[in-house]
Amino acid sequence: MTLAPETALAGLDDFTIEVPSWAYGNSGTRFTVFSTPGVPRTPFEKISDAAQVHAVTGLAPRVSLHIPWDKVDDFGALATHAKELGVRIGAINSNLFQDEDYKLGSLTNVDERIRAKAIAHHLDCIAIMRETGSRDLKIWLPDGTNYAGQDVLRGRQDRLADSLAQIYAALDDDQRLLLEYKFFEPYFYAMDIPDWGTSLLHCTALGERAQVVLDTGHHAPGTNIEFIVMQLQRVGRLGAFDFNSRYYADDDLVVGSADPFQLFRILNEIVETGGHTPSSAQNGWAINFMLDQCHNIEEKIPGQIRSVLNVEQALAKALLIDRDALAAAAQAGDVLGAHAVLMDAYDTDVRGVLADRREARGLPRDPIAAYAASGYPQRIAAERVGGTQASWSS
Amino acid sequence: MTLAPETALAGLDDFTIEVPSWAYGNSGTRFTVFSTPGVPRTPFEKISDAAQVHAVTGLAPRVSLHIPWDKVDDFGALATHAKELGVRIGAINSNLFQDEDYKLGSLTNVDERIRAKAIAHHLDCIAIMRETGSRDLKIWLPDGTNYAGQDVLRGRQDRLADSLAQIYAALDDDQRLLLEYKFFEPYFYAMDIPDWGTSLLHCTALGERAQVVLDTGHHAPGTNIEFIVMQLQRVGRLGAFDFNSRYYADDDLVVGSADPFQLFRILNEIVETGGHTPSSAQNGWAINFMLDQCHNIEEKIPGQIRSVLNVEQALAKALLIDRDALAAAAQAGDVLGAHAVLMDAYDTDVRGVLADRREARGLPRDPIAAYAASGYPQRIAAERVGGTQASWSS
Amino acid sequence: MTLAPETALAGLDDFTIEVPSWAYGNSGTRFTVFSTPGVPRTPFEKISDAAQVHAVTGLAPRVSLHIPWDKVDDFGALATHAKELGVRIGAINSNLFQDEDYKLGSLTNVDERIRAKAIAHHLDCIAIMRETGSRDLKIWLPDGTNYAGQDVLRGRQDRLADSLAQIYAALDDDQRLLLEYKFFEPYFYAMDIPDWGTSLLHCTALGERAQVVLDTGHHAPGTNIEFIVMQLQRVGRLGAFDFNSRYYADDDLVVGSADPFQLFRILNEIVETGGHTPSSAQNGWAINFMLDQCHNIEEKIPGQIRSVLNVEQALAKALLIDRDALAAAAQAGDVLGAHAVLMDAYDTDVRGVLADRREARGLPRDPIAAYAASGYPQRIAAERVGGTQASWSS
Amino acid sequence: MTLAPETALAGLDDFTIEVPSWAYGNSGTRFTVFSTPGVPRTPFEKISDAAQVHAVTGLAPRVSLHIPWDKVDDFGALATHAKELGVRIGAINSNLFQDEDYKLGSLTNVDERIRAKAIAHHLDCIAIMRETGSRDLKIWLPDGTNYAGQDVLRGRQDRLADSLAQIYAALDDDQRLLLEYKFFEPYFYAMDIPDWGTSLLHCTALGERAQVVLDTGHHAPGTNIEFIVMQLQRVGRLGAFDFNSRYYADDDLVVGSADPFQLFRILNEIVETGGHTPSSAQNGWAINFMLDQCHNIEEKIPGQIRSVLNVEQALAKALLIDRDALAAAAQAGDVLGAHAVLMDAYDTDVRGVLADRREARGLPRDPIAAYAASGYPQRIAAERVGGTQASWSS
Repeated sequence: MTLAPETALAGLDDFTIEVPSWAYGNSGTRFTVFSTPGVPRTPFEKISDAAQVHAVTGLAPRVSLHIPWDKVDDFGALATHAKELGVRIGAINSNLFQDEDYKLGSLTNVDERIRAKAIAHHLDCIAIMRETGSRDLKIWLPDGTNYAGQDVLRGRQDRLADSLAQIYAALDDDQRLLLEYKFFEPYFYAMDIPDWGTSLLHCTALGERAQVVLDTGHHAPGTNIEFIVMQLQRVGRLGAFDFNSRYYADDDLVVGSADPFQLFRILNEIVETGGHTPSSAQNGWAINFMLDQCHNIEEKIPGQIRSVLNVEQALAKALLIDRDALAAAAQAGDVLGAHAVLMDAYDTDVRGVLADRREARGLPRDPIAAYAASGYPQRIAAERVGGTQASWSS
Repeated sequence: MTLAPETALAGLDDFTIEVPSWAYGNSGTRFTVFSTPGVPRTPFEKISDAAQVHAVTGLAPRVSLHIPWDKVDDFGALATHAKELGVRIGAINSNLFQDEDYKLGSLTNVDERIRAKAIAHHLDCIAIMRETGSRDLKIWLPDGTNYAGQDVLRGRQDRLADSLAQIYAALDDDQRLLLEYKFFEPYFYAMDIPDWGTSLLHCTALGERAQVVLDTGHHAPGTNIEFIVMQLQRVGRLGAFDFNSRYYADDDLVVGSADPFQLFRILNEIVETGGHTPSSAQNGWAINFMLDQCHNIEEKIPGQIRSVLNVEQALAKALLIDRDALAAAAQAGDVLGAHAVLMDAYDTDVRGVLADRREARGLPRDPIAAYAASGYPQRIAAERVGGTQASWSS
Repeated sequence: MTLAPETALAGLDDFTIEVPSWAYGNSGTRFTVFSTPGVPRTPFEKISDAAQVHAVTGLAPRVSLHIPWDKVDDFGALATHAKELGVRIGAINSNLFQDEDYKLGSLTNVDERIRAKAIAHHLDCIAIMRETGSRDLKIWLPDGTNYAGQDVLRGRQDRLADSLAQIYAALDDDQRLLLEYKFFEPYFYAMDIPDWGTSLLHCTALGERAQVVLDTGHHAPGTNIEFIVMQLQRVGRLGAFDFNSRYYADDDLVVGSADPFQLFRILNEIVETGGHTPSSAQNGWAINFMLDQCHNIEEKIPGQIRSVLNVEQALAKALLIDRDALAAAAQAGDVLGAHAVLMDAYDTDVRGVLADRREARGLPRDPIAAYAASGYPQRIAAERVGGTQASWSS
Repeated sequence: MTLAPETALAGLDDFTIEVPSWAYGNSGTRFTVFSTPGVPRTPFEKISDAAQVHAVTGLAPRVSLHIPWDKVDDFGALATHAKELGVRIGAINSNLFQDEDYKLGSLTNVDERIRAKAIAHHLDCIAIMRETGSRDLKIWLPDGTNYAGQDVLRGRQDRLADSLAQIYAALDDDQRLLLEYKFFEPYFYAMDIPDWGTSLLHCTALGERAQVVLDTGHHAPGTNIEFIVMQLQRVGRLGAFDFNSRYYADDDLVVGSADPFQLFRILNEIVETGGHTPSSAQNGWAINFMLDQCHNIEEKIPGQIRSVLNVEQALAKALLIDRDALAAAAQAGDVLGAHAVLMDAYDTDVRGVLADRREARGLPRDPIAAYAASGYPQRIAAERVGGTQASWSS
């Protein structure tokens, strides 16, 4: 039985996407960072920009912070600023890749002084979580090696396990550790957490409040990402997504812009288990659907709005899949029939019905146009003159 | 302190490589299978060929069988035949990819009758293990799907877990289950065991006598395979290797022919933990170093000899690494210095010292030349006329 | 100015897709070929099946033949059979991968006798072109090497150039040579025509009636295929497509099933130059849009119908792109705006309007349902009993 | 007939490698640039460092410059400085990726003012060539797009062709244009010169003094690079190498460190045609063997020395290949025999004989140790304090 669209799309009601503070600052490739008028100069201005995304979409009520990029004297004031703008602080992200000390590793460094410093940085982050009400500590470990023989791989894993254990022990009971993996970059020979298997092994060793972060841009070419989504849900360890797009290497593009069908297949696995609804939480923890992307050459706030809408669109299509028909066709061994059920949902144009939903909730039908017409872009371009624009290096 | 070569190479003394019966038959691509004079027509002839590899190298005392390709009326007689030729039966490999029933899956099939049949096939294999003295049941699961939506991925995992549990329960206490993974092929959209993480999850669920098989040709482009070797050893679950080479997709080339440095790096991780020595066995189980390759266009027995020698050469070089110097350089943060220690071992020409070792053990200095001069190739070409040559499809 | 859909879709009026005779026979991976009830046993039966695809879609009036798979005593009779069923013979494909002689190469073989034989095979194909009215000789060269050092790469290119020159010289003035490239497979180390650059170099050396075939499954991971489409059109050498889909290696899936957005981007480049219309012909030669795919586990005729419809759908969406708006946004440096113009066309659901067009032309609204209801599948399953089913190996 | 090593290695006599000025400055990933004591602050200091590499290896008599990074008031003085240190200025590299204007393209930019500026930058480079005696203008075009639809791909090619024609026209008769390609980066969707085919098409359109640069790190995964080396030599358009290593994405590692066998295969194709000797020059132009790499975490001058020695070692091994034996085995269809001929050369340890050669020429047997013992590293670490260290961003 196919659900009527309006019934199926009720699955969108409680769905939210978290946006990253760093998407509003300047970013770039290893070759250069281009600057853009109106870019925020402070964490407060980043939050203001993020709030614009939520204002026109109703989908993005949380903002991830990155420490120390978003370090402020008074995190309580930052949380209040967010609240006044209708959003709140989400995950706290640690930074292990910009300190000179971390040249040869942070949580895996063979130098105990440096390793202790990297662990201590996370205790600072946990303190910020308490000040901001954040429950998610997200760790992307950029550690690795560039040359075979540069270091003993096994020793790095053992040190990593020990570092993570110290961090995990410092968390409160209502806080969790989200551990990301990345196939390559910034190191070229061996990343210390290159795949979901490694991340999962560490999470399992830590305890129930350690979960894996799946960044859609962090896999080898040809990897079936939705399979991993399924597998991590199956073992109750899919903690969060970092959404973005990529064609080959970097992972900064608007989610859904490079392979919208893949995004749909990923969200299909989410809908299959109800993972998009808060009630699906395992051990009290729901999946945190986050963006992790930058806008190197395009406008930043519109880039975020587009991204949020792309995820919503893919989820809407995934909700339209007639799962009974698909399962029946699969059971009957009707390969093309089952595939066709999936494609029928994907081929549906949901833009109109999503605009209707927005309108019914007092939101603009066309969020990008509404933002452009809001006067905000002109205002920040005019006001944010002087000072240093936020970027990856500040 | 650098070991003298003769001391370091003592690590070769107990090292053995298992060869696959199917390497002696015809094989090919999806486009065609070319035939070769002298190819075996029976499992007994395959064992005879495998014994030639051991006779000239002293390295390959076991032969893997593949069921039903190697089905004989009297497996005791086959084991005796092997013994008389100085070798013995190694792992038993099941076949889940050539029965019409398995078109849409075997251990994962949604049809309970077919799934039961696939499980029962493994009970037959276990019976053959008992008859031949084999302790390793190797499962490569070729199941998967070609189209998104064709089947529910989660359901396939659950059925797989149940199938494996039934098989594992049938094993004797001195038998283990070796579970292989493969990134792609023969299915194009989603393999049901695509990566080491999935294989490990199933092994962990099964019990201590379930271990992962790492086939060197079964990864996405750019994957750091030695990292996986390290990680699986770290959790005590590296059961076996399937050695071979590949450049892009197929995995049939002579091991060490496409990237000899990678093979060396893999064996470096083995030597790091002593995994090449029987005394390293975890829970009583040593790593089984097997070849899994075919010789589509080259001569088959010489292809196997070359392969065995390539593994020996890579292991010898890995044994020469000055691990103290490498660790000291790594500890000092001397990136190029540590790398240079590794490269010094790799750049060493060990062919002469390995020939000396062979000679000292009554083996020919040049195994390939010795085989060519043995009269065996001429004899099998003359004798093996009539009957059907063994191949993947018989 | 956006065209009204009905105006834009006029671009579909003269668009046709050629289907391959081998899609109706059995096929498989290197591991096995599964059989299917009702599969054709003769080239005549293959043509009959292909005609069903055209009957319900109106899009597929030509059938490619493969020699010797489609060898018949009387090609005139085969052409007449096709004509009576409303279709005609398209490209003639040579086969260089199933003769024992071609184990180490065909048009590149170092053995002059074998090379001459491979050339002569093409003269036979040209004779068949004359008998069937075919104007396209399509060559996919499966030659290559498995091991570094196996042969001198340069010598193979020189022999290839000479072989192609002999074949080209035998063509009539109204016949062309279509030269395909393939990144990998069936050889593992070096393919002799691995990329579009190599194919183009040979075509340029041959003359104006030599053009490149772009098979959508024949590229390295991450390759931007639409860029190649653009580049080959720019130099007037895009002769034909072989459409299909793949995720990693094999290239047998229904076109548009793995990455429908990529197919849309490819057709966007076609529409950009008008390459979908016969009037766009360069030097009198239009692009031949062909399918080259097999249906290993799914039903074959429905698989072809789905494929043809997927191409039509992607082309329809590409025709809807508001090119003036896109160019204006690009000119203005509006990155997200220009991208949004493209996505607006892609996100449009064109299934209804395409069904309307079919109905207006006397075709069924739902071709797959119409085929299923036609009685044809039941008839062939009942009638085609006895004899050998067509497959890659017969 | 196998050449005696001393005879074969005579092929090294005239072989030289060009080193890049930017290898001596700081560099990094998109995440950060780590600083190193002793890094040069001026182009003069970079030349001094490069001269150290030549002093201990005798292999690196030229230094590539990058404009504007190496801009000085008096290029004649810089050339004299080089000459005094025993080296000279090599290729001049233009920079099209760090000016804010180039955010959406340089030689392809839709804005005619920006495009003219990018062309004019090359006229400046040509002037510098005249001042420094450089004959090679090297262009790596970083242009591309991040999003499908962002710009019309065809239009970008046409503007590129026009820009290159203007630059080419400004060259003197004894100067050539070297045009590089890169599969991906810094743009994510479509690079404007992604492959050798595109580079070659533009070179062919320009004239005989336009040639392709092959950077060993600029290909899709799985690409057979030595095939491209062969093909470009075959059409007389291989102008230069940019040597480096990579595992997945970035291309900054020491050449030969990731896949030394690949480097050997590449140099095998060079030796096959004699391309390593100046006498092989086509149209008066020899292949320029350059390094293009950076040393993010390792010491920079030792990194360059190691790189130069790795290329020398690979070339020495390639010179040892018994080409008569290989050709004879290939002619006989002896697949493993021909491969074994190649591997015999590769497996040879040439470190000793290369040290002997150096000693015979008055060079240190161990260049890295000699550099470490020279006092130079301590001197620059002490002297180069204050001022800004050279890096990609200055």
